[in-house]
This record gives sequence, structure tokens and C-alpha cells, in this order.
Amino acid sequence: MANTSMDVISSLCKRRGFIYHSSEIYGGINGFWDYGPFGCEMKRNIKNAWWEFTVRTREDVVGLDATIIMHPSIWKASGHLSTFSDPMCTCRSCKKLMRADQVADIFTDGECGKSLAEVVKDGVDAAKVAGWCKGKAKGIAKTLAAVADADKLTAAFNAMKADPAKYADLYALYTLLAAPETEGYRACPYCGGELTEPRPFNLMFKTVVGPVDDPDNVAYLRPETAQAIFAEFTNILNSSRVSVPFGIAQMGKSFRNEVTPRNYTFRSREFEQMELEFFIKPDEAVELVCGHVVTMKDNPDLSTPAKDWGWEVWHKYWVEQRKAWIHRCGLPAASFTEYWQKPDELAHYARACVDIEYQFPFGLQELEGIAARSDYDLTQHQIHSGQSMEVFDADVKAAAAALDDAAKAAFTEKVVADWTARGKDPEKAKKFLASLFEGRYIPHVIEPSAGVDRMMLALLCNAYEEQKLTDNKGKDDSRVVMHFSPVVAPVKVGVFPIVKNKPDVYEKAREIYKDLRKRVSAFWDESGQIGRRYRRQDEIGTPWCITVDFQTLEDGTFTVRDRDTMQQTRMTLPEFKAMMEEALLM
Amino acid sequence: MANTSMDVISSLCKRRGFIYHSSEIYGGINGFWDYGPFGCEMKRNIKNAWWEFTVRTREDVVGLDATIIMHPSIWKASGHLSTFSDPMCTCRSCKKLMRADQVADIFTDGECGKSLAEVVKDGVDAAKVAGWCKGKAKGIAKTLAAVADADKLTAAFNAMKADPAKYADLYALYTLLAAPETEGYRACPYCGGELTEPRPFNLMFKTVVGPVDDPDNVAYLRPETAQAIFAEFTNILNSSRVSVPFGIAQMGKSFRNEVTPRNYTFRSREFEQMELEFFIKPDEAVELVCGHVVTMKDNPDLSTPAKDWGWEVWHKYWVEQRKAWIHRCGLPAASFTEYWQKPDELAHYARACVDIEYQFPFGLQELEGIAARSDYDLTQHQIHSGQSMEVFDADVKAAAAALDDAAKAAFTEKVVADWTARGKDPEKAKKFLASLFEGRYIPHVIEPSAGVDRMMLALLCNAYEEQKLTDNKGKDDSRVVMHFSPVVAPVKVGVFPIVKNKPDVYEKAREIYKDLRKRVSAFWDESGQIGRRYRRQDEIGTPWCITVDFQTLEDGTFTVRDRDTMQQTRMTLPEFKAMMEEALLM
Repeated sequence: MANTSMDVISSLCKRRGFIYHSSEIYGGINGFWDYGPFGCEMKRNIKNAWWEFTVRTREDVVGLDATIIMHPSIWKASGHLSTFSDPMCTCRSCKKLMRADQVADIFTDGECGKSLAEVVKDGVDAAKVAGWCKGKAKGIAKTLAAVADADKLTAAFNAMKADPAKYADLYALYTLLAAPETEGYRACPYCGGELTEPRPFNLMFKTVVGPVDDPDNVAYLRPETAQAIFAEFTNILNSSRVSVPFGIAQMGKSFRNEVTPRNYTFRSREFEQMELEFFIKPDEAVELVCGHVVTMKDNPDLSTPAKDWGWEVWHKYWVEQRKAWIHRCGLPAASFTEYWQKPDELAHYARACVDIEYQFPFGLQELEGIAARSDYDLTQHQIHSGQSMEVFDADVKAAAAALDDAAKAAFTEKVVADWTARGKDPEKAKKFLASLFEGRYIPHVIEPSAGVDRMMLALLCNAYEEQKLTDNKGKDDSRVVMHFSPVVAPVKVGVFPIVKNKPDVYEKAREIYKDLRKRVSAFWDESGQIGRRYRRQDEIGTPWCITVDFQTLEDGTFTVRDRDTMQQTRMTLPEFKAMMEEALLM
Repeated sequence: MANTSMDVISSLCKRRGFIYHSSEIYGGINGFWDYGPFGCEMKRNIKNAWWEFTVRTREDVVGLDATIIMHPSIWKASGHLSTFSDPMCTCRSCKKLMRADQVADIFTDGECGKSLAEVVKDGVDAAKVAGWCKGKAKGIAKTLAAVADADKLTAAFNAMKADPAKYADLYALYTLLAAPETEGYRACPYCGGELTEPRPFNLMFKTVVGPVDDPDNVAYLRPETAQAIFAEFTNILNSSRVSVPFGIAQMGKSFRNEVTPRNYTFRSREFEQMELEFFIKPDEAVELVCGHVVTMKDNPDLSTPAKDWGWEVWHKYWVEQRKAWIHRCGLPAASFTEYWQKPDELAHYARACVDIEYQFPFGLQELEGIAARSDYDLTQHQIHSGQSMEVFDADVKAAAAALDDAAKAAFTEKVVADWTARGKDPEKAKKFLASLFEGRYIPHVIEPSAGVDRMMLALLCNAYEEQKLTDNKGKDDSRVVMHFSPVVAPVKVGVFPIVKNKPDVYEKAREIYKDLRKRVSAFWDESGQIGRRYRRQDEIGTPWCITVDFQTLEDGTFTVRDRDTMQQTRMTLPEFKAMMEEALLM
């Protein structure tokens, strides 16, 4: 898919009331997007589908709805205050601010990149590129025409990277301007001026709580919903009948003061997350209770959680659960992939992290992540709050009590050796075991973290099709159709009277419409030809359209037109409802 | 109800996972509350009930989900930047900040007030009060014991206000300390020190968007969801098939930097709103099209909107709709009242405003408001954005075209006279009519604005009961029961196997539980006596409990125990589901 698709999609979204730029009448505000009538229904459907799948239909997950502004110590404990930042450069000439790690992207995405695309539109010709390179330095951006062909540009960059010797001039430009982290000298992609050293810029939005504007009252808009789950862990443990393994789920707005929001709604400053923290026993506790720990090498059945699963199996289980949910929402299995982070990409406390990636028109990008975060988060909050985050587990205590001294010593030796091998302090292992033998431990956590807006954007991209058709007179025809799954479609059913001026038919159609509307989002349309009414529903992705006609008055059946096949079938209302309700169950 | 009830309710809410103080492990953050497992389910139910009632089951309302941070010009247009503030005083001695209009309340609520309550606990004795008054001035708060009897204190203040001569000393104190707006001299209720003149403090939380911290980039967290609806009015008009009269609904978080958040979740700094802007024709347009305008004097049938309704009828219609919804969520009709704001209480642009008030334990307080706001908001945004907020209405244009010159002149004369009588500029009336005759006008708006947290708090207060019972052996017993309506109850049904150790019964119960959980929030409980399991569900307000027993294996029936009557009935699964689904429809 080329970049143009993104324009087509954003244009459809604005035209049909899915997504608008926030505050558009005041010139807009960069990085903020509003969901219109169909957009907010679809977003509600995605969130509801997540909640049903993750919370309501499970016995081992409970919900939370915490505030966006929390005590600032939470962000100290989580590390966001010290490390949640992007490296920023300023151009000493034109004073523009940019992310140091995006200077390359500014070339690719910006006017400069567009000009390069122009140069390489007939293939990557080293001579042409060399000529272009000479024209760089100051004022590049001003002299360049607007051209958009990102595919060719990407191809050019890839060819260049694969064979730097062949495209020496271009590659010299690339390393000079676009990879500041590897070069002593950096140039501004807007004017060619010199850039400052990168400095960290914290991405949390700041505010002040209460009437006194002093540093003690500074607070932050949460950059993620997850931390509230850790902060409320003990409250939930004490007030709900949960025991490890169990999860706490939360959906809600998060805020990141992105330096360069882009790619439509993909990277915005205000967005919505759906996060689950699923707390599990440390592997050592599983081993104590079960005598062994199941790992992926044991090829476990991932459909039903078992007592003897170790963290690795739980992590893979949640990867599979998340993929099942994404698939259920309508993304074909072939359209998204698992990216397993390499050991050197992982955060120091993380045991594994999988990104589910989707092929957006602007590239393969993360849709959501599933991380095995060990006991890092709860431990941090225990240290910073002084409150114990340990749970008591009677099974573990009983299992430890049943060990004789020799078995206990052997177990201790094994665990200490394992921790030491993983570069951890053996004294900490002993302290951990002393608690564990009393049945006390800090749970480990698997964190599936998804973005509502990203999921919606992927669903919009996936659903869009411009179809060429032949009408029943053999003439060329076309339609724009959004192939949404029934679960996420903003409108489930359109209801039309075949004619407007026959009271019997009209009233029968109204009756059916009113009945359906009690349970699902239904759309009444009585104007224009039936074909045109179908097209309107196709464009907003309505899976079924019902047309009530004269036969309905006789036998109660109406035509149900399937959006994707465009086939019509006659059904009664109970038949249709049964079919629809089956399709809507998560 | 006395203040103690509020403590009982907040204690139950914490114990059973409804509501926790935000960031409690870090000492909490004043004015922020988190909703735990049952609380967030209940909050979801309230929001879903509002959305179903207000949007999904209506043909004339569409939804919106806009951002919390918007372009700052929106708050300039709405007036929030200049006028959304509280008057603040600072004590010159102890440096405490307080709301000038709450100094009186600080007396009533704080330690000082509690001490006064102690003095008057046996009746308002002028001599005692005089003695107490002498003890005021500096350091009052420190010397006072903690006593809480707000009812008596309120009675004392009321008696005092009714007969100032009799309680001269007390009244002198009251006017001196507690009514700064009427007195030149003000004293600090904490230390008796002198207070500064009140200064306005804007209640919007401020932040900075983007990496550059300068005044151009200041933005605000929305203090209400309504303004986004006006800002997106034209986008929605252009992308949805709506025409006046129609509404735009939005739910979501809002933020107000309250100086003194209080009364549990009632006045908090982060809260959730459910707002509808329902756009209607100006009365003049109705008159043009229909030849008359229906007012409340015509005693209209409020169940079905009609073309000839004027703003007054639409306003009353929405008052009735909102009351119906509140009632449907479970507040008895007798527990809330309509307060019609007096002309001098109304904002200058408002035609009418009704507060729906609920008798909270801490007093009669606003649950929600329904305001007739004329065309004020859209007009303000038209002025500030330079974008037209007019709609085109073919019926109005046709009706105007059908008038002959004499009729047009008569209509003009009448409208100008009416506007002039209401203190409005006759030139503006003429300009308005010139547009109107072309079928163009700015719609007027009725705004029902509700708070999710307030509604939930009212439902919690209303539901709570400590019941004295007699058990079947004639012994005294008791239970705490939350009488939630099925629509808002966090758990709809508890499912119990009568015994744990009979696989047939156990599996049958699991099967029923799993079936129910597909559609509603169900709770499985297999531990302890059945009576104890009922009590657990009573305390979280579960309307029905199903017990599966040996007879279930024979005839498929189980006992359904009603929470309120505690009566048990045998039903089959289809019978139970039909009964439950009927009870859950909005």
C-alpha cells in the first residue's frame, strides 16, 4: 500500500464521520483527533470487545478505572520521571526542534525526502543522486517541490543501505544528515544548519494540582494506564476475591507529549489504551508447589491455563490470546506478525517482549506489545511507597513446609545458582527464598498492552476496498466498501422500506427497525433507490441491510443483503436476529 | 441521614472494591478517586445505560468522542478562560489559601465548626455561645476537640439566622468570620488572622503542548465535555445525516482544579460527565413553519416530540427524559427533586435551567442540570473561529417564501418587538430575520448535563441498607444489602452449586454459570454455606442468586433467590434468562 491510501482513508473518515482533526475550526491542534458519530461507535465496540474478552468472560481478571492524574511519586517509582524522554536537537540556524532519532525520518517524510523521491523516481541513479546531494546544505527544503512517492524513496534508501559502495554519494548524505547518533557532525534537514547535542525531553504532560503553583504540587497526565494497576494492587487484593494467577485490566486515556505526532492517529498526543497486568507465581513458587515448571520446550496445550505453567508459557499464552482477539475483531491472521524482541532490545528487567505488528500504509508498525516484566514494577512500588506488595500463598507455604532440610538446601542451591547465572545478586536470591518458604512473594507479571486508536486505524486500513463491479445491465460500476467484522462495525444493520409511500410496508419496516434498535445500532434509511442506500451502508461497513417489501406483509420474511458478497437471502426476524447475535458474540 | 452514613458508604466501597482513594500507597492525592473491580463495572453500567437511552435507542442523537486537550481558543470562546474561576483568599498570618465563598463552610465542616457543635449540642444557649465566641481569634482550631454533629450545627446556624437578635453573640461571630463577602473585615477560620481580598483563581488545569514551554503552547484540560460538541458541530453536520432538531452526545473525563475537593467523590478534581447538546429550531423558525409555537401553557403531550414545539417544551421534555432515566437507573422518584433556577440565578444567555437535586447524606445537592442555553454557545464559536455555525433549513426557507409582503412585515414587527422586550438589540433581530427568511439560522440548544460520579454516589447512598432480620430459628440476624437496580448492579447474578463435592451438581452449575457469563457479569461462588454466599452478594447488590441442586439434574430447574425479598423461586435457565433480559433492557 502506498502513502496515498492513508489520505484516502483519512478523507473517508472525515467525510463519513469517523475521525476529525480536533479543534479544526480554530486551525486544529497537532496530535489530537476526535471520533465522530460512526468513529465513536466503532471505538466503543473495540473497547467493549476487549473488555468482554479480557474481563467479563474470564474468571481470573478484574477491572479498574483509575484517575489520569495520580500522585507524582508513581512516576518516580516507575522510572518515567527520569527516563521517559526523547533525545531532542535544536538547529542552531533555524531554531527548529526535532527528535534526534527522527532526523532520518524527517528526510524521508518531509519535503527533503519528497525531493529525493523525485530524483529517484525512475530508479536509483547514482549520478542523479550525486547531483542532488551537491544541492543540499542550506535552504534545501525551500528549493524542493512537493512530491510524494514514499515507496520509491524507501526502495531507494534500502538499495542504498544494501550496497553503500554503489550509491556512495547518497549514502554519504544519509550518514551525514540522517544518522546523527553515529556521526560527530549533524546537519538540520530543514536548512542544513548545525544541530545541538541531543538532550532528553520528558514526554509527560505536566500540570499543577491545587491553587498553589509550586514544585510540590506538580503532577503529570499518565503516559500509560498500567502504573495505576500496580499502585492499586494491594487495594484490589484486599477487596476482591482474587488469588495469583489473576489479572487486573484497565482501559482509558493516556497522554504523551510527542515531539512529532504523525501518521494520522497512529502517534498522537492523547490516545486510549487497553492494558492488562496478569500476575503469576514466580517460577520458583510453581516448582515448589508442582515439583516442576512447564516451559515452551514441553510443548504445552495453550488453550487452558495450568498450575504448573512457568512465566514463559504464560507469556506465550497471552500472545496467543491477544492474537485471537485481534483476529476476532477482524484483522486477517496473515496481516499481523509477531516480532520477538532480541535480548539486547529488552528492558533490563524484562524476560521477553513480543510486538504484534501490522502492515500499515506507512510501514510495519507496532499494534500492541506483550511483555514479561518479572516482578520489576511491584518491587519498584514496594521500594518507593514502603508498602509491601507481597501476596500470601498457602499452597506455597505448605509445599515448602513439606520439604525436608536436605530438599530445602538442594532447592536453595539450585535457585541461587540460577539467579547468579542470570547476573543477579545471590544474597537477594536467599532473601527471596526466605520469604517464599513462608508462602510470601511478589508476583511476576505478563503485560499485554494495546492501543485503541492503533487497533482502530489498522481495522480501517484493513477494511477499505474500492471494488470494480459490473451492474446487472453489464455496465461498469464501482463501490467503496469497508469490510468491518460485525463485532466492530459501527452500525450492525440498515433497515429500508422498499417504498416510502405504502403505509403497510413502511410501518412494517419501522416495526422491525425499532425492534432491532433495542439491542444493536441500527440505521433507518428511506431515501433514494435501494442500490444507493446499500452503497451508503457499504461505505460505513454495515454488515447487513434489510429491505422490507410486499412479501414481508404476507410471510414475514425480508431480504437480508450481505455487504461483502452482495447476495440477498430472505429471512424472518427471529432467523435474522439469531444469525446476527451469533456473529456478535465475542 | 447524618454524616456518619457517608463514612459507612465509603468504608463499604473500599472494603468491597467499589472506590479507593487514588495513589493511596503514596499518601493519596486530594480530590482523585479510583474505581475498583465492582466500582468500574457499575460505572460502566451507568455510562452504558446513558448511552443506550440517549444515543442508541434514539434516531435523533449521534455520539462524539473528542479529546480532553483542545485548542485553547475554545476556552476563550466559551468564556472559561475569563470567568471559570473561584474567589480565593489567603490568610496573612498562617498563609492558608481558601475559597472566599467557603469560609463559612470551613467553620461548619472544620474543627472550628465541630467545636461550635459541641457548644450547642444541648440546644443553642446564647450564654455558652458567647463564652465560646470569646475564645476565638488566634489558634481556635488548635484548642478545639473533634466533634461531629453537623445536623445540630446546621440547626444552630439556621436558628441564629432566623433570629439574629436572640443569638446576638453567635451571629456577630458568624457575620464576622463566616460571611466575608458582606463584611469589610474577614478573619481566618483556622487561626483568626486577617484574610486578603478575594482574587479569582481559574479552575482549569494548565499544561504545555509540544517541547517548547512558552505561552503560545499553553493548553487546558477540558473542564466540561460540552464545548467539544460545539467545536465539532459543523463537522458532524457535514458528515452525518442529521437535521435540526437533533442532538450530539458525549461522555468522558473532565477536570476542575477545585480549591477544596470534598464530600467523598461528589466534588472531585477529575470526574466523568455525560453531556448532550440537543439542537432545536429558534421559536421564530417554528412559528414560520407551523404558524404557531407550542408552549407549556398548551399542556403538550411530552411523550413524543412534535414539529411545533418551542424551546420551552423541548426543555421540559428533556427534564422529563432525564428524570425517567434517573428513575430507570434505580433512584426512587421521591428521592430527587427539580429545582428551577430563579431569573436572577440564570446565566445571561440562559432561558431556563433546572437542577435535579438528590438528598445526599451531606445535604441536598445537584445531581445534574438541564439548561436552555439559546444560541449562545454556537454564536460564541462563530465569532471566535470566524466559521459559520448556521444550518440551512429548506422548510423554513419555503415557509418564508410563501409569506406575502404584509405577512412578512407583520412577522418582522412581532419578532423585533419580542426581542426588544427581552432587552435585545432590534438591529440584531432584523439581521437574524434576514438570514431566517433565507432558511439559515444558528440552532438553539437544550443541554442535559450529568455527572457519572455523582450519579454513582447517589445510587450507592440510595441502595445502602442495614437490615435487621429474624432467621428461621427465630434468632436475630442482620445483613447489609445494596438495593441496586439490575441495570446498574455490577454483578447481575451469582451462581452457586449447593454442594462442592458432587461432580454432577458442580458441573451443571458450571455449565449454567458459563452460559450466563457470555452475556452478563456473573459471579461464581462455591465456598461456605449458601447463606453466607447470599450475604456476600447482598453487599455488592447482586439482584439474583442461582443455586443449583439435585433437583436441577432431574428437571433443569434451580432456585432463584431475589436479593430484596429474599424469596426463592424455581426456574429453568430459559425462564431465568427471559426474566433477567427484560429487567436489563433500558
